[in-house]
Amino acid sequence: MAKDRVVLAYSGGLDTSVAIGWIGERTGAEVVTVAVDVGQGGEDLETIRQRALDCGAVEAYVADARDEFASEYCMPALKANALYMDAYPLISAISRPVIVKHLVAAARQFGATTVAHGCTGKGNDQVRFENGITSLAPDMHCISPVRDLALTREFAIDYANKHDLPIETTHHNPFSIDQNVWGRAIETGFLEDLWNAPTKDVYNYTDDPTYPPLPDEVVITFKEGIPVAIDGRDVTPLQAIQEMNKRAGAQGIGRIDIVEDRYVGIKSREIYEAPGAMALIQAHRDLEHITMDREQARFKRTVVDRWSDIVYEGQWFSPLKRSLDAYIEDTQQYVTGDIRMVLHGGRAVVNGRKSETSLYDFNLATYDAGDSFDQSHAKGFIELTGLPAQLAAARDVKFGRGVAIGKAKLN
Amino acid sequence: MAKDRVVLAYSGGLDTSVAIGWIGERTGAEVVTVAVDVGQGGEDLETIRQRALDCGAVEAYVADARDEFASEYCMPALKANALYMDAYPLISAISRPVIVKHLVAAARQFGATTVAHGCTGKGNDQVRFENGITSLAPDMHCISPVRDLALTREFAIDYANKHDLPIETTHHNPFSIDQNVWGRAIETGFLEDLWNAPTKDVYNYTDDPTYPPLPDEVVITFKEGIPVAIDGRDVTPLQAIQEMNKRAGAQGIGRIDIVEDRYVGIKSREIYEAPGAMALIQAHRDLEHITMDREQARFKRTVVDRWSDIVYEGQWFSPLKRSLDAYIEDTQQYVTGDIRMVLHGGRAVVNGRKSETSLYDFNLATYDAGDSFDQSHAKGFIELTGLPAQLAAARDVKFGRGVAIGKAKLN
Amino acid sequence: MAKDRVVLAYSGGLDTSVAIGWIGERTGAEVVTVAVDVGQGGEDLETIRQRALDCGAVEAYVADARDEFASEYCMPALKANALYMDAYPLISAISRPVIVKHLVAAARQFGATTVAHGCTGKGNDQVRFENGITSLAPDMHCISPVRDLALTREFAIDYANKHDLPIETTHHNPFSIDQNVWGRAIETGFLEDLWNAPTKDVYNYTDDPTYPPLPDEVVITFKEGIPVAIDGRDVTPLQAIQEMNKRAGAQGIGRIDIVEDRYVGIKSREIYEAPGAMALIQAHRDLEHITMDREQARFKRTVVDRWSDIVYEGQWFSPLKRSLDAYIEDTQQYVTGDIRMVLHGGRAVVNGRKSETSLYDFNLATYDAGDSFDQSHAKGFIELTGLPAQLAAARDVKFGRGVAIGKAKLN
Amino acid sequence: MAKDRVVLAYSGGLDTSVAIGWIGERTGAEVVTVAVDVGQGGEDLETIRQRALDCGAVEAYVADARDEFASEYCMPALKANALYMDAYPLISAISRPVIVKHLVAAARQFGATTVAHGCTGKGNDQVRFENGITSLAPDMHCISPVRDLALTREFAIDYANKHDLPIETTHHNPFSIDQNVWGRAIETGFLEDLWNAPTKDVYNYTDDPTYPPLPDEVVITFKEGIPVAIDGRDVTPLQAIQEMNKRAGAQGIGRIDIVEDRYVGIKSREIYEAPGAMALIQAHRDLEHITMDREQARFKRTVVDRWSDIVYEGQWFSPLKRSLDAYIEDTQQYVTGDIRMVLHGGRAVVNGRKSETSLYDFNLATYDAGDSFDQSHAKGFIELTGLPAQLAAARDVKFGRGVAIGKAKLN
Repeated sequence: MAKDRVVLAYSGGLDTSVAIGWIGERTGAEVVTVAVDVGQGGEDLETIRQRALDCGAVEAYVADARDEFASEYCMPALKANALYMDAYPLISAISRPVIVKHLVAAARQFGATTVAHGCTGKGNDQVRFENGITSLAPDMHCISPVRDLALTREFAIDYANKHDLPIETTHHNPFSIDQNVWGRAIETGFLEDLWNAPTKDVYNYTDDPTYPPLPDEVVITFKEGIPVAIDGRDVTPLQAIQEMNKRAGAQGIGRIDIVEDRYVGIKSREIYEAPGAMALIQAHRDLEHITMDREQARFKRTVVDRWSDIVYEGQWFSPLKRSLDAYIEDTQQYVTGDIRMVLHGGRAVVNGRKSETSLYDFNLATYDAGDSFDQSHAKGFIELTGLPAQLAAARDVKFGRGVAIGKAKLN
Repeated sequence: MAKDRVVLAYSGGLDTSVAIGWIGERTGAEVVTVAVDVGQGGEDLETIRQRALDCGAVEAYVADARDEFASEYCMPALKANALYMDAYPLISAISRPVIVKHLVAAARQFGATTVAHGCTGKGNDQVRFENGITSLAPDMHCISPVRDLALTREFAIDYANKHDLPIETTHHNPFSIDQNVWGRAIETGFLEDLWNAPTKDVYNYTDDPTYPPLPDEVVITFKEGIPVAIDGRDVTPLQAIQEMNKRAGAQGIGRIDIVEDRYVGIKSREIYEAPGAMALIQAHRDLEHITMDREQARFKRTVVDRWSDIVYEGQWFSPLKRSLDAYIEDTQQYVTGDIRMVLHGGRAVVNGRKSETSLYDFNLATYDAGDSFDQSHAKGFIELTGLPAQLAAARDVKFGRGVAIGKAKLN
Repeated sequence: MAKDRVVLAYSGGLDTSVAIGWIGERTGAEVVTVAVDVGQGGEDLETIRQRALDCGAVEAYVADARDEFASEYCMPALKANALYMDAYPLISAISRPVIVKHLVAAARQFGATTVAHGCTGKGNDQVRFENGITSLAPDMHCISPVRDLALTREFAIDYANKHDLPIETTHHNPFSIDQNVWGRAIETGFLEDLWNAPTKDVYNYTDDPTYPPLPDEVVITFKEGIPVAIDGRDVTPLQAIQEMNKRAGAQGIGRIDIVEDRYVGIKSREIYEAPGAMALIQAHRDLEHITMDREQARFKRTVVDRWSDIVYEGQWFSPLKRSLDAYIEDTQQYVTGDIRMVLHGGRAVVNGRKSETSLYDFNLATYDAGDSFDQSHAKGFIELTGLPAQLAAARDVKFGRGVAIGKAKLN
Repeated sequence: MAKDRVVLAYSGGLDTSVAIGWIGERTGAEVVTVAVDVGQGGEDLETIRQRALDCGAVEAYVADARDEFASEYCMPALKANALYMDAYPLISAISRPVIVKHLVAAARQFGATTVAHGCTGKGNDQVRFENGITSLAPDMHCISPVRDLALTREFAIDYANKHDLPIETTHHNPFSIDQNVWGRAIETGFLEDLWNAPTKDVYNYTDDPTYPPLPDEVVITFKEGIPVAIDGRDVTPLQAIQEMNKRAGAQGIGRIDIVEDRYVGIKSREIYEAPGAMALIQAHRDLEHITMDREQARFKRTVVDRWSDIVYEGQWFSPLKRSLDAYIEDTQQYVTGDIRMVLHGGRAVVNGRKSETSLYDFNLATYDAGDSFDQSHAKGFIELTGLPAQLAAARDVKFGRGVAIGKAKLN
């Protein structure tokens, strides 16, 4: 009878390399590894694929998902201007679903019934992996070797040495890092003391904004919410993010230091770098200001607040997420135009915007000659919008509960 | 029989100086001027008072409301982290209510039944004045000489010259400016072309962030949401704002360039400077991250979105505003602690925080020895939080509506 | 040179019959009447058309819009379960947009530049007409003869008599009524005293629920949110509403007595009858309970609250409305199945539901044998969902601010 | 050394009677029972207390918490008009916190460190108990004998017979019931088939509404959101609920049949009876319509939606709940007046309301002589409130994306 198969989210690093054998030992299953390039850099996919096989994987699935990730995950986040807690651009949160999709594809292709990942039991990513998996493949099981099979770092080093695995075990990285084209997330021991400032070696995507090069002016062209050209040159979504990572990163833009509310109920200190993401969100948001109707934009903030929370919590493939996307998508049809922005010393500052689909009306806005705004409408508008508060004030007066002014009540 | 009296919001400038006589001519009423210091700088109150009398006012009321404004208007905005459209710290919007309160106080003191203000008929401030007035004094009438009595700039110059009023008429300021201790708002003709960048002479509260002095580290101590000390020295709310205006202003922090949705239904380009406000909001928001419960903070964003909108729209004294304040106030009881922040080159960056009332728990958060988080709880948590999306996915599979992966449907 | 033309929303009644001539006299324009059948009953369209011509209209446009109204206006309201203030099914609010569409179509067809309607200046309908018009045809002007041209009831009677118009002028109806297939709205003088109960003659769509006939059991079949069969017989949306109006009306279902917040800032007493609408909403809502994901349904309530408010306020054709519809539409794809309901004595009570697309899982829900719910997951779920409040409680204890119990504090 | 002590939520029934001994056997701890009267009826507290001791409890704590429950738990729910999923008045959800408070009080009094309850592992009540406990006493542990110690019904019968416990073991109740003064909740096997209608024997608090007695008119007087008199006689909150339970129950009011979204992620069929609660909520909501400002009331619906969700989920003592209460409490200061209501055949219909603190203004609302509403304000109001949608429409026209009308596009 055929053995059960487990699909393992594989990074090529020590822990998941050891997990290949360890899962086999503990569960009796064959392990299929899945490595997905979402722009994290580092080793090439072929090297990673070979290492997986050398460590005992029966199959090693690799995929360059950078364009897919940029187009189908980063662009929706950009359309949403998504920032968890108004701060964190969901770097890891949006990369998990694309990896999940490839895990499920590999599981279907190679006949696996279980998915394994390398997350611990106190973070968000375990939830994103497992809820992502069962939101696509409700019959699939999930395990975490670290959380469920006692795979500690010390055990992994011993195991790798004992089995002579082709993976370095001596290097101790003080940082816990996750990175992709949308940004980079860093946690580390000394930052767990909230009074400690990040040190320079924490950063990799951004240069120090304290000593910036000369200001860099950029014009980003959007079409229906998506960047399609930079300084007049056509770009794909992936190219747009990559170029802005480089240019905004050189100016130290997009560093974030935040104490975050994790889904599992605790607060934790996180450092992020997202130069391209933060610059693009800034530009996109500004373009929305001139192309989106006021009430549509207001309610979009409510929609996006919920969108960001549930994406953070691993509900990318949930019914609610799809319905929220329907709202957001509908708002983007006119978000088309040019944004001019100066990148300098940690700041991405919009100072010019131009759009055929703008709702800004010069003739209504100007105080110069040509003003077409009929000021006589204001009186009736004020009278009726103010009526409810006026009636409430009259009641306050009647019951002596008015606002106090000086020593006496006003009313 | 006594003449009717009109209370006029008086700045000491040309338009309102002319309005004193012009209201008298057009309505037959006596005019009482009211000048309120909310930190706008410029001439002293006594000079303004005397000019009002010289221009024909029967009474001239003046008030130094700087502490009142800082404590009762800026501090609630700080507790709310209030930013209209996630950008504008409501500079003019929160100063109108304190002026309104003094207008009503003066009207009661001097027996006036009408309030006049210098606003045009296409901005927000007319609404804030008039709805503010009738929310405190529902029997009061409002007029705007500019909007209702055809008081144009050209007419004002002619009138002042003809009546020999003690006010300069030659100077032409290209900017329309409103300023107070919470910030400064600038509109001007050439910025009505959205592609034009602001020029250097637009700014006054902030130096150019492109060429900053050395970084300035500051520690701000909050108690229940209010700054009470800076670098260990006790401060009043007014002093906190003033000191941060100076220090953050020197670093070019708090410049804002936005196309804004006005309450009267149009979009308009606005430039703001709010160095102290933006730095304090940044610090306050960060302190909330460590001291406020996740769900309380999430819903606070919904509350504050509404708060910002209605304050922008002139509903400071409305029933809704008071009820929203009750929510916000309740969230601030533990927002106490120290925030360390580096001010430099347009950026106010928090890099340390410390609080006796923090909800951050080192032992739950750490990945080092001492970790007290029980990872075995995660499995059940993930299973049940993921159950609804899993059931929905099973339905998708049943009806062949699953998420597509590669060429085929996943399900 | 051709005369200007005004399109007039025409009911066939006294006021709008007089308006034909009166608009001509006051503005010099030719009048084109538009009469739209939205299920209000009364005279047939041909009679109305002829009267318009007899009263001086140059053209008389009539349209049977009952199916259009049911399908494109009532069905979206049903999908939304739309109830303004959780009570009013937006009877008049959703009929105005369909009339507006025909007004604009007629204006385009007959070359008119102005639209006239019969509303007063203190209700919601003037806003719905005028904002509807300019949301479809931004160049169009609007006038209201009653509000803008001093067309009072007394004047109308005199005018009709003097000009010998073919319309009855003697009958005095004590009620102000608006009705269509979605329901009926009644206002009247004696109900303006809020302590007065409605009398029997107020009602027309519903029989007295105090003395009902025998209970009437009905099974309504929905497909993607729309009723498609009743008791197994296929129905169109119009037929579904009509049949439910008859059957629920016979049982006195759908009477509403409410003091409502009008958009113009005042409160007013309204009586409504909507037997079909209320029974269908009840059924539809129940079907959503078994077919819609919890979080999708929760956020739908937020979406629908906004939808109801803006539709009430005349923003049917606004950008926000379209985006909200995108959300709602996305939620309806699985709202398919049968609802069994007993209609009796003013109550429409669902007591059975059946759906292929249900998310209810008997095996997870049952307490009998066959239970597939793994209760061991609960502990971890409770621990982590309870963690934030537990940490907050520990802080309360630390600062002696715990909940008081008996005489002493608990903590 | 002293034994550990466990406080057990004790109903006097078979399962918790057996749990006394079973917890002792399994954990070695002494058991202290806690029985709280929240209006569930049945045996008196002294009988229950004696049985607990007879079954082996070392201490038996009893408390008549009916007034406390009515005043501090039911009244906040009434002020909120709280209905989970717009339907369920949170009967069990609000009784758990008051029981929790007594459990913690007893634990403190008798030196216990663990709390036990009789809930299963798939319902909401386990969460409400345990999260309630740790929200008041973060150091306390929780266990559920049914979920954690394998205490099944069959085991309980055997155990009781074997140990000769003074409790009946033969009676088989087909229903699972929880009841208190705010209502009654019923689950049962045959209702797990959603197509089955409830049978008559399901109900106990309400008579069949199909055959009602004569209509019963009642006048309820509220003061700041709380019922203080019925038909002119002063009542306490408890008396108000009890009297309305009797009178509305006799008319069959307040029966609810719903498929509900449980917090643990599944849907389940629930039957409720809450005659007093539903009638009081109906009356209270109507009084709010005349006494509460429109915008305050609108946002209150958002607040209450969240309030209902988190109370349902066991977060009564959470920081968010307290802050939401601050909002709600602030809205109630003017909710004072008389509501006249007819109770008949399952319907509680308000037909008169009277209040000194009403915001309804007859002179503004009336269409008769005395109308003080200035209709000339409407034009400006409509122009400016309609301006954003008009500008959006002009853009639609420009890009040919207008609303289609008939065969052609309108624009």
